[in-house]
Amino acid sequence: MSHLGPLRRGAWAALLHQLLRPPRAVCTRAVGCHSQVAEAVLTSQLKPHQEKPNFIIKVPKGTRDLNPQQMVVREKILDEIISCFKRHGAKGLDTPAFELTEMLTEKYEDNFGLRYDLKDQGGELLSLRYDLTVPFARYLAMNKLKKMKRYQVGKVWRRESPAIVQGRYREFCQCDFDIAGEFDPMIPDAECLKIMCEILSGLQLGDFLIKVNDRRVVDGMFAVCGVPESKFRTICSSMDKLDKMSWEDVRHEMVVKKGLAPEVADRIGEYAQCHGGISLVEEMSKDPNLSQSQLALQGLADLKLLFEYLTLFGIAEKISFDLSLARGLDYYTGVIYEAVLLSSPDQAATEALNVGSVAAGGRYDGLVAQFDPKGHNVPCVGLSIGVERIFFLMEQKMKAEILYKNNPKLLTQLHYCEKTGIPLMVIIGEQEQKEGVLKLRSVASREEVTINREILVAEIQKRLSES
Amino acid sequence: MSHLGPLRRGAWAALLHQLLRPPRAVCTRAVGCHSQVAEAVLTSQLKPHQEKPNFIIKVPKGTRDLNPQQMVVREKILDEIISCFKRHGAKGLDTPAFELTEMLTEKYEDNFGLRYDLKDQGGELLSLRYDLTVPFARYLAMNKLKKMKRYQVGKVWRRESPAIVQGRYREFCQCDFDIAGEFDPMIPDAECLKIMCEILSGLQLGDFLIKVNDRRVVDGMFAVCGVPESKFRTICSSMDKLDKMSWEDVRHEMVVKKGLAPEVADRIGEYAQCHGGISLVEEMSKDPNLSQSQLALQGLADLKLLFEYLTLFGIAEKISFDLSLARGLDYYTGVIYEAVLLSSPDQAATEALNVGSVAAGGRYDGLVAQFDPKGHNVPCVGLSIGVERIFFLMEQKMKAEILYKNNPKLLTQLHYCEKTGIPLMVIIGEQEQKEGVLKLRSVASREEVTINREILVAEIQKRLSES
Repeated sequence: MSHLGPLRRGAWAALLHQLLRPPRAVCTRAVGCHSQVAEAVLTSQLKPHQEKPNFIIKVPKGTRDLNPQQMVVREKILDEIISCFKRHGAKGLDTPAFELTEMLTEKYEDNFGLRYDLKDQGGELLSLRYDLTVPFARYLAMNKLKKMKRYQVGKVWRRESPAIVQGRYREFCQCDFDIAGEFDPMIPDAECLKIMCEILSGLQLGDFLIKVNDRRVVDGMFAVCGVPESKFRTICSSMDKLDKMSWEDVRHEMVVKKGLAPEVADRIGEYAQCHGGISLVEEMSKDPNLSQSQLALQGLADLKLLFEYLTLFGIAEKISFDLSLARGLDYYTGVIYEAVLLSSPDQAATEALNVGSVAAGGRYDGLVAQFDPKGHNVPCVGLSIGVERIFFLMEQKMKAEILYKNNPKLLTQLHYCEKTGIPLMVIIGEQEQKEGVLKLRSVASREEVTINREILVAEIQKRLSES
Repeated sequence: MSHLGPLRRGAWAALLHQLLRPPRAVCTRAVGCHSQVAEAVLTSQLKPHQEKPNFIIKVPKGTRDLNPQQMVVREKILDEIISCFKRHGAKGLDTPAFELTEMLTEKYEDNFGLRYDLKDQGGELLSLRYDLTVPFARYLAMNKLKKMKRYQVGKVWRRESPAIVQGRYREFCQCDFDIAGEFDPMIPDAECLKIMCEILSGLQLGDFLIKVNDRRVVDGMFAVCGVPESKFRTICSSMDKLDKMSWEDVRHEMVVKKGLAPEVADRIGEYAQCHGGISLVEEMSKDPNLSQSQLALQGLADLKLLFEYLTLFGIAEKISFDLSLARGLDYYTGVIYEAVLLSSPDQAATEALNVGSVAAGGRYDGLVAQFDPKGHNVPCVGLSIGVERIFFLMEQKMKAEILYKNNPKLLTQLHYCEKTGIPLMVIIGEQEQKEGVLKLRSVASREEVTINREILVAEIQKRLSES
């Protein structure tokens, strides 16, 4: 594991992320580039209005290109993830980018507006897939498969409002692992958590924690708190925002927007504060209110068994039973989980690293039946790795550029910065090392200042934000 | 290279392709599969109408899932292709699945109706990408890059009418390699052809040929044949269909549908019959009609230089200068090429293997300028590997299943066929081997017939088409 604390890495990352942007603009040359042959053809073929397009050249909102450097990072991440999936016996699967719209409806209640529909150009009504789980359930039902351990890597599309969720993409890559079929209770669920641990450790993203809960515990909690059954899903979706919003804001949404009685919301708030290990599971089983719910007790019994397996797997200390965890998607029916990266204490100041959950999943025992004409069901449990968020962190880690040279002349290094468009250069020579300072040089203006190490990050951030 | 002739393989393939389909349906069991826990949740959560969906469960027209066996085949193909691209120094790139619609317009004149547009849900107008070339040109212009050797692997979408082009998919995977920038003439073009040869040899698909022409030769030929300049692109698009349609049908389209004078079409028809090596290039340079076109002469001069490099690369015998080759896409400006697999003489009977071109590409020196606000241009040349068609062939090759067993009891093998849903079994025991016959057994009915090897393929095809 890296010896750099997340703050240092995060701050560095934030600036280096920006540092790497300019080169593409800087390193281009204005030379006329087309050959004589090409020119002849151009003259004969290009219509005048094509030479000066009257549109702004850009990618669609919420999407991006991955340049070759970024592709290397993504490949590294995918290799780590896929090799773990394969190690656990999963087989690959691929499904089309779009599905019949009717296959996707009623699967994502509160997120309904976020689907990309294709234009009706005659023929079938189609929508881009929203995740890889629903296509997997459709695949199982369509092929009448009762057992399958599969992984799938692919892009999914969600029309998230960029104003609400900053830094999220509308097109992003997911890596899913799922186990379909009847097995000994909680064994596949425990394997999913084991896989999440293996992948997050393997990617060396720093310390992490996996929050675990059970949809039945959530529903049972709602019931004993006095939430009307018709509001279970929508209140669940509100509670799911607790990782991005404060309890006050979530409570406000529950009460004002969703019409929940304030005292009911407050009761939920009390439970939502609880998190711990297997002892909390046992404690909650004896909770005078929660134990009134048979559904909650079923969930708690499964969680107890789950923790026993997690202890056997040696990963129990990475798992936290967390009653605030809800998972927004409608199709979960049992255990749910979500992995978050842990910040170091001094990281609270930087918001940049708050990338939300990096992996999540759960049990969805009712989804396949929704596709099967006879309602036959296949119990499933799985997980999804959020590649974009991991990518964001990995990219930052990998973008600090140090020029190793046989003969490290300063001039050569300066030329390198100029040629590749790096705007700022940090110089730590013998003298600087002795004095515990460093020189920060603006490559374009060639101006140099000596500064203390402590203020380096702030100074670079300041300069970059001004440029 | 395989010792099996394409016919034998092709015929085997066609039947094995079908042989492998049933298992998924056969091996499923009707056992009730959901656990008690799942049942409890289901009862509480599923609305009655969700248990019996009132839609037919299927994937969108022209798309398909790839099951784990197919994924293994695809992975093998992509590994071979990508490793060759990397060996030639290409870097990876990824672009979004959709682009702003305006980025895609005017790039594919005759194919305009085939684009998948997204529904206007507020915001930008978007379309699924039609190929990987236009996004690459957009990427170069957007980032003001003047030089890049990149590869990209990804899905593209075309709303092809399935009635017209059978066996083609509307969603398919392309592997592109392109060289952007100014280089010594025909060096990058020759490298592209070298790469095509390396990949097609590496995949062991049997013998192949790469047809080469030049857009300027095509246009020059049209000009000297008397095609009005306004009809160049549309007649070009007709000529491109020569690999799928007879000359008579193409001529009919040119004359009746596109209003070309019959004698003009006939003149084109004469040229379109010509194909050969460097000597044909030289011959055409002296052709009294064709040499009237400066454009054609430029193209021929480049082709001559290209053939010199191809000879140096040792691949000239794989390349055929073919005046019928046109390439439908509008953006080509120079050399164009298309790889086809060669059928053995006796293969003409089976239509199944007629998969069209497996790789194609060409020079497009005007495309980047169409995106650049100042009309700056970057000459480009590249190629695209049609993974679906290669997949179709590879899958067939890999699907003949032989059960290797330590103790190969016939009963065990029969059970295996029953369990995995294989409908037909071919048995070659000592006696059959001696007599040069074999037994064909219907797994379901357990009926066995002794037949001659020669009629095996026909017999299996007959039985499968009846079942």
